[in-house]
Amino acid sequence: AAPKFYFGDGKDLEIFQMVQVWSIYTMENDAVNPNMDARNDIYIRRGRLGVKGHIRKDITFKVWFAYDNLGKNEYTAGTGTPNTTAGKGDNGTENREFYIWDAIWTWHLDKEWANISIGYFRPQVGKESITTAFKVISFQKSLPNFDFRKHIVGRGPGRETGINIGGLKLGKGWSVNYNVGIFDTNHQKIVGNGTGSKQPTVGDGEKWSPMYAVRVAFTIGDPEMKKYKMGYTQTYYGKRNGTTIGLNYTYQGKTDIFDKNGIYAVDILSNYGPVDFNAEYDWLYREKGNQDSTDTIWSVKLGYNIKLE
Amino acid sequence: AAPKFYFGDGKDLEIFQMVQVWSIYTMENDAVNPNMDARNDIYIRRGRLGVKGHIRKDITFKVWFAYDNLGKNEYTAGTGTPNTTAGKGDNGTENREFYIWDAIWTWHLDKEWANISIGYFRPQVGKESITTAFKVISFQKSLPNFDFRKHIVGRGPGRETGINIGGLKLGKGWSVNYNVGIFDTNHQKIVGNGTGSKQPTVGDGEKWSPMYAVRVAFTIGDPEMKKYKMGYTQTYYGKRNGTTIGLNYTYQGKTDIFDKNGIYAVDILSNYGPVDFNAEYDWLYREKGNQDSTDTIWSVKLGYNIKLE
Amino acid sequence: AAPKFYFGDGKDLEIFQMVQVWSIYTMENDAVNPNMDARNDIYIRRGRLGVKGHIRKDITFKVWFAYDNLGKNEYTAGTGTPNTTAGKGDNGTENREFYIWDAIWTWHLDKEWANISIGYFRPQVGKESITTAFKVISFQKSLPNFDFRKHIVGRGPGRETGINIGGLKLGKGWSVNYNVGIFDTNHQKIVGNGTGSKQPTVGDGEKWSPMYAVRVAFTIGDPEMKKYKMGYTQTYYGKRNGTTIGLNYTYQGKTDIFDKNGIYAVDILSNYGPVDFNAEYDWLYREKGNQDSTDTIWSVKLGYNIKLE
Repeated sequence: AAPKFYFGDGKDLEIFQMVQVWSIYTMENDAVNPNMDARNDIYIRRGRLGVKGHIRKDITFKVWFAYDNLGKNEYTAGTGTPNTTAGKGDNGTENREFYIWDAIWTWHLDKEWANISIGYFRPQVGKESITTAFKVISFQKSLPNFDFRKHIVGRGPGRETGINIGGLKLGKGWSVNYNVGIFDTNHQKIVGNGTGSKQPTVGDGEKWSPMYAVRVAFTIGDPEMKKYKMGYTQTYYGKRNGTTIGLNYTYQGKTDIFDKNGIYAVDILSNYGPVDFNAEYDWLYREKGNQDSTDTIWSVKLGYNIKLE
Repeated sequence: AAPKFYFGDGKDLEIFQMVQVWSIYTMENDAVNPNMDARNDIYIRRGRLGVKGHIRKDITFKVWFAYDNLGKNEYTAGTGTPNTTAGKGDNGTENREFYIWDAIWTWHLDKEWANISIGYFRPQVGKESITTAFKVISFQKSLPNFDFRKHIVGRGPGRETGINIGGLKLGKGWSVNYNVGIFDTNHQKIVGNGTGSKQPTVGDGEKWSPMYAVRVAFTIGDPEMKKYKMGYTQTYYGKRNGTTIGLNYTYQGKTDIFDKNGIYAVDILSNYGPVDFNAEYDWLYREKGNQDSTDTIWSVKLGYNIKLE
Repeated sequence: AAPKFYFGDGKDLEIFQMVQVWSIYTMENDAVNPNMDARNDIYIRRGRLGVKGHIRKDITFKVWFAYDNLGKNEYTAGTGTPNTTAGKGDNGTENREFYIWDAIWTWHLDKEWANISIGYFRPQVGKESITTAFKVISFQKSLPNFDFRKHIVGRGPGRETGINIGGLKLGKGWSVNYNVGIFDTNHQKIVGNGTGSKQPTVGDGEKWSPMYAVRVAFTIGDPEMKKYKMGYTQTYYGKRNGTTIGLNYTYQGKTDIFDKNGIYAVDILSNYGPVDFNAEYDWLYREKGNQDSTDTIWSVKLGYNIKLE
């Protein structure tokens, strides 16, 4: 547990960190250059530090920062864009960026049905995407994490500014978890370069549409969480007996990049004692004039918890 | 209140944060392109996180960081430069910069007359500029904040490196607050591009002059603050009865941009029970050869505190 | 002392900061332009903030951040690259970068012989380089700090990603401290621009070799430290009576920049009551085809602690 400080009136603050240091040996990673040496790369795959807590009894927050992929080389055979610092020293070959990861404030107006979140966070769709990399049962997150994010918000971390309302109803032997959000996308790959009189820096095109994101998850057996939150896990280390099925949907109308863009996705998480089973199937579509494109991504994972005596 | 930790010998540390999440609907913001869609923009207008406290009984410090305008679009009709991260992903359309805001250390040599501050902070001139955006009585800071800063230090946050000495004399029914600072400007709009043999990165021209900043404020009635500090407010939520009049002055000699540059400004803050009245008038001048330019900026605000039962 | 929080099971967390604010008056610093004004520069030479502690009884960590050289001008006659923020406002003349400095996790498997560290940190070679700037007995670090770092890892802060194993054997009147590390360099000045099909951002060339770094230090008298750590000091304020001699070695094989690269270095630290004596001699070499180059760097420092009554 991280250090948690209590300071009256239901207020508290926690300082937390997470890290993954990876060492990857890459045998071959350049199709056109056979002379590339094999190489080993030691790097900080994920480095995080932040604060979270209650600023009022019914308002929680989480602000955290990342220094991911610090020391990662371009030719390493692994997902993730190397951490670089543009314009530093010699053509941006510094790797020391410390950047904002999430900044969320949630007002628990009604703990069961109306938890309203604002800020910069993941649209609550795509189970692999909204499950932290520190709680997936595979070594690395699966493809539905990476492609999904690029498709709906354009950026690898998958964050966007917006508003979300969600809830969690716990029944006897069943539960329902829902989230509905509206997001204001601004990545160049989603909204374009800008065509107006201003110099584009954060992509902003002529046409504008909000992105809607909806997820509903039904559970039989133990719930995924005891109270509403926007973080998920794929294993309970043998302590959960339950199955959750989630339906995911996003829709965004006309921007400079597309006429329509969105996903449909279904996911399942089953935890029964030591067995963890998890699968996701995503259907992505994008329409632009006569050029419609679709894609599908999926993953299936099966895990077994071995108890160390 | 933020969590404050005490650890003996008069030392303490406080972790603090502030945030403003805005949603702005922009109907029209491009004079030359009538096809621009109206649009709604949800973004973190101001996001701050930092630490402050005493490192010795008589030395206070404040180091805080910002992630302002995260998610702001170029075409949104609001002040503030969008948060961008140059060279990241696709032509700098990431928006995740977390940057230093203030870094001040103050030695309270004589609590009344000699409080010496060093670091990176606002020259103590321009009442609207030196009053935090979280304590102004208007939704947004008024024009004397933005133009004033650009005129004297060149950058929107209005910070510069320097040294300041200030004091606060509390009399009976009156008080005086003074600040005198010397600052080493380095923004390109103030000192130029550099003409020497080195590649300019932080603007540094051939000619160099320091910037002087002086402010004296006279109060009748309740003082603005009980002990010397460099933060101000525009409302006391009904608890102050007093009027403060401030005189402000800056002067900087020859740089590559101008021969002389500075401001004269006067401001007033009156708080009587529920009524808050605040006004500022700034006279800006810049001389360069035969081309003298002057400008004036002003604001008047009147507020009334409505008590919620 | 910084605030340190204990939260059971041997876990603790400390929030720490360090700062150096400098004011440098530069009389002349441009050989080709005699018209350059003399100038005074007030800037934050070193600004640091971070967290450290135990995440488990036998695992320590340190993650800290820097905002060095904030406000430094290009023409100031002092070491250190000005803090700049590329692409911000007017041609990168903002100076507000807050970046990762060190990120180390150490597993104290065997406290005496096997302390294993991973992350982003200084290869444990070059005594001046691995001694913090806040504990050297000269106003500024000496030349063996700056040139040494550029030679082995390419960057001023001297950090690289890697793994290190080290130990400290305390005898009676003697002690031995050793460190052996392997590092994965990625700075353009060490590994080149990249010649493959990918756009180079963090330098990554065709040829790859790890860098090995070894240091062994022998002490007669009081040890340099009571338990193994990767931080050193040059003065004990009169409390140590001992002499330490260190031998340093690095080797890196073929990259796109060189065929072989490395250093040999010897250093001495003697502290006897109020007297501090410190010297280092480094021999740098780099081989590339027929072009071999070598260089030497050295420093000698003598200090005396004057007790203030």
